[in-house]
Amino acid sequence: MLNFNYDIPTKVFFGKGQISVLAEQIKHYGSKVLLVYGGGSIKKYGIYDIVTSILKENNIPYWELGGVDSNPRITSVRAGIKICRENSIDFILPVGGGSAIDCAKAIAIGFYSDSDPWYLITKQAESKNALPIGTVLTLAATGSEMNMNAVISNLDTIQKFVVFHPLIKPKFSILDPTYTFTVPAYHTAAGVADIMSHTLECYFGHVKDAYLVDKIAEAILLTCIKYGPVVVSEPENYEARANILWASSLALNGLLKYGKETGWCVHPMEHELSAYYDISHGAGLAVLTPNWMNYVLNDHTVDQISQYGINVWGLPAQEDKYSTANQAIALTREFFISIGLPTTLTEMGIPEEKLAVMAKSAVNGGTISSFRPLNAQDVLNIYLNSL
Amino acid sequence: MLNFNYDIPTKVFFGKGQISVLAEQIKHYGSKVLLVYGGGSIKKYGIYDIVTSILKENNIPYWELGGVDSNPRITSVRAGIKICRENSIDFILPVGGGSAIDCAKAIAIGFYSDSDPWYLITKQAESKNALPIGTVLTLAATGSEMNMNAVISNLDTIQKFVVFHPLIKPKFSILDPTYTFTVPAYHTAAGVADIMSHTLECYFGHVKDAYLVDKIAEAILLTCIKYGPVVVSEPENYEARANILWASSLALNGLLKYGKETGWCVHPMEHELSAYYDISHGAGLAVLTPNWMNYVLNDHTVDQISQYGINVWGLPAQEDKYSTANQAIALTREFFISIGLPTTLTEMGIPEEKLAVMAKSAVNGGTISSFRPLNAQDVLNIYLNSL
Repeated sequence: MLNFNYDIPTKVFFGKGQISVLAEQIKHYGSKVLLVYGGGSIKKYGIYDIVTSILKENNIPYWELGGVDSNPRITSVRAGIKICRENSIDFILPVGGGSAIDCAKAIAIGFYSDSDPWYLITKQAESKNALPIGTVLTLAATGSEMNMNAVISNLDTIQKFVVFHPLIKPKFSILDPTYTFTVPAYHTAAGVADIMSHTLECYFGHVKDAYLVDKIAEAILLTCIKYGPVVVSEPENYEARANILWASSLALNGLLKYGKETGWCVHPMEHELSAYYDISHGAGLAVLTPNWMNYVLNDHTVDQISQYGINVWGLPAQEDKYSTANQAIALTREFFISIGLPTTLTEMGIPEEKLAVMAKSAVNGGTISSFRPLNAQDVLNIYLNSL
Repeated sequence: MLNFNYDIPTKVFFGKGQISVLAEQIKHYGSKVLLVYGGGSIKKYGIYDIVTSILKENNIPYWELGGVDSNPRITSVRAGIKICRENSIDFILPVGGGSAIDCAKAIAIGFYSDSDPWYLITKQAESKNALPIGTVLTLAATGSEMNMNAVISNLDTIQKFVVFHPLIKPKFSILDPTYTFTVPAYHTAAGVADIMSHTLECYFGHVKDAYLVDKIAEAILLTCIKYGPVVVSEPENYEARANILWASSLALNGLLKYGKETGWCVHPMEHELSAYYDISHGAGLAVLTPNWMNYVLNDHTVDQISQYGINVWGLPAQEDKYSTANQAIALTREFFISIGLPTTLTEMGIPEEKLAVMAKSAVNGGTISSFRPLNAQDVLNIYLNSL
C-alpha cells in the first residue's frame, strides 16, 4: 500500500429533508451568497424555490449565476468572479450537479487571483485563498461535492482542464436523494457510468497490495450494478437513489485513491470527446470503458481484470483467465447498454475526423495510466475501436 | 438508508516514515505538549526516542504522562488534567494504542471543565471546548485515532464508560504500519477481533437498505480474515500490517455507521467483563461474538447472518438458511481460535459468580441492540453460554 495523506473535511448532510440545515451552515462561513446553478431544472422541480425561500427567511442576501452549462465554461467562471467582486460576496452555493459545483469551485479560487482563471486552471498556479463553498446536490455522478477537483471547459481553445486544490473542498454538502428523483433516465444512467468509471480508474492500477481499498471499490461497483437499473426504471425509489448518491460521493472523495497510484486514463480520453463535441461526460465514459479494458488486456493485466469479473460480476473462477476477463468486459458493455447508454462514438455523432488530434491532446506528449501505459497511438486505437 | 451527518475531519498521515510530519502538524495547533503513553513498549521499541527527539529538535517543550493502563483509568485522566493545568499545556500527543488515545481524549475534554472528569464522562455533560489532540498510533484495534469516542474505566466503581464528543476527534493521526511490527501476537489478534467486532456491530442491525455501507463492512471483514492470520504469524509483513491498520481506522471512524442505526450490544457486554476482570477487550469480544450470534439467530435474523456467511466466508447459498448461518458462526469461532484467541470465559479466568450483576449493568435497566434486542436475562444467557 502506498503512503497517503487522508484529508476529507467536507461535512455531509445526507437524507430526506436535510435542506433544513442550509441557513445555519451558510452562516458559519459567510454572509453574502452567490447562488450558482445550471439550465433551469432546479427551477422546474422546485429546488430553486426551496433554497431561495430559506435564504430570504434567514435574511441572507444572494446574487445569482444561472445557466451554467453541463460542461461548465470558463466564461461562466469569469462572470461569477465578477459578480462576487462587485458585491463583496463571501460564500458560494452551487445547487445542482457537478457542473454547477465545478463552476463554483473555479470561481472560489479565481476570486483571489490577479490572473485570468483560465491561466490559473491550466497552469495549476499556486493559490493561497479561496471563497468557501457549500453545495446542494441534485445529481449523483461527479463526486465534486466532497473533493478538491473541478473540470472546466474552454470553447475558444477547445480544451477541458481539471483543477485540483485543497482550498476548494466544499465546507458542507447537502445530499437529499429525493432531489435526484427528477433527473431524467439518460442523465441518471450517465451518472452511474461516471461513478463506475471513477471507481475503475482507481481499481485498475499497478499497486496490488491495497486489498482493503480494492474491496471498497468493489463495494461501490456492486452498488452501481445493483441499483443502476433501478434508478433508471424507478426514478423515485429512495433506497436505490440513496445508495447511488452515496456511492457517487465515496467513489471520488479520495477513499479509493488512498494507498493506490493515481494515473487515470479513461477520463483524460473522454475529456477530449466532450471538449470537442460537448457530449454527456458519463455517456462518453460508457463508450470508452469496455474498449479500454479490451485494449489493455494482456498478460500483465489479465489477473486483475479476471478478478474484477469474479468479485464484481460474480463469474466463476476458471482455468482460462482470459475467458473470465473477456466475459467481464462483455458484461460491463452489456450493463451500460441495459441502462440506456451508447456503446459507440458513432451513436453519439462523433466521426473519425479529429480523433488523431484528440489522442495527442489526451496524452499531452507523454503516456497516461499506470495499469497499462497508453501513448497517443494507443489512445487513437481505443478511439477507433470505439467508433 | 437512515439520514446521517458525515463529519470525519481527522487528517491521517499513513505509511512508513510519516512521523516526519509530526513537528509541523503539532505547530498548527499548539506549542506545549503532553505526551501520553502506556506501559513502556514505546520505550522498548524506540518510538519514544523518535518522538521525543523530534520534539526536542523542534524546540517543542513537552511533559509526560506514562503508565496509562490498557483499560485506561480515570485516575490517569485526573493526573493528566493536573499536569496540563499546571503547565499551561495546549496540545496532547498520545503515542500508543487506543488506551493512550482514549486517556488523552478524556484529558482534553476534562481540561476545560470544573467538574470531575468521571462526572463529565458518566453524565455525558455538555462541553464547549477541548484541547487539541494528535496521535501516533502503534496498535491496530480501537479506531480511536479517527473518531470521537473514548472508553475510560473506574476501578472504584467497577465501571467502564464510553464518552462521545465531536471536540475530541484527533486533529491528525500518524499511522505507520512499521510501528505495529512489534505488537505481540496475542495483542495483534485481539486487535483484529476488535476491528471485526466494530464492523459486525454496525453490519447486523434492523436497517437493511444501506447496501453500500454493508458492502464496505464486508470489505473490512474480508480484510481481517485475509490478513489477520498473517499479522499474527508474520509480524513484519508490511502489506498485512498496513491493510489491518487502515481497516482499524475505517471500521470505527463513522463510515460503517452512516445510514444505519447504532444500537451496539457485544461491546457493552464485553465492557462489563473488562471492567470487572481487566482482561483484553479484543479477547473478550472474540469470546462473546460467536455466542451472541448463535443466541440471536432466529427467523428475523437468519437472512442477514446467512448472507454474512455467503459474502464474508464464501459459503455457498443453500436452501436451508439456518445451515448457512450456523456454519458462518462456526467459522467465526474457528477464525478467532486460529489466531490464538480464547473462546470461553473460563479460559480467561472469569467465573460465573458476578455474571448476573454484570448482565444487569450491561443493559442498564433496558435493552441493547436493535438487531435482536437483549435484556438482562438475554445477556446473562449469552454470558453463561460463553463460560
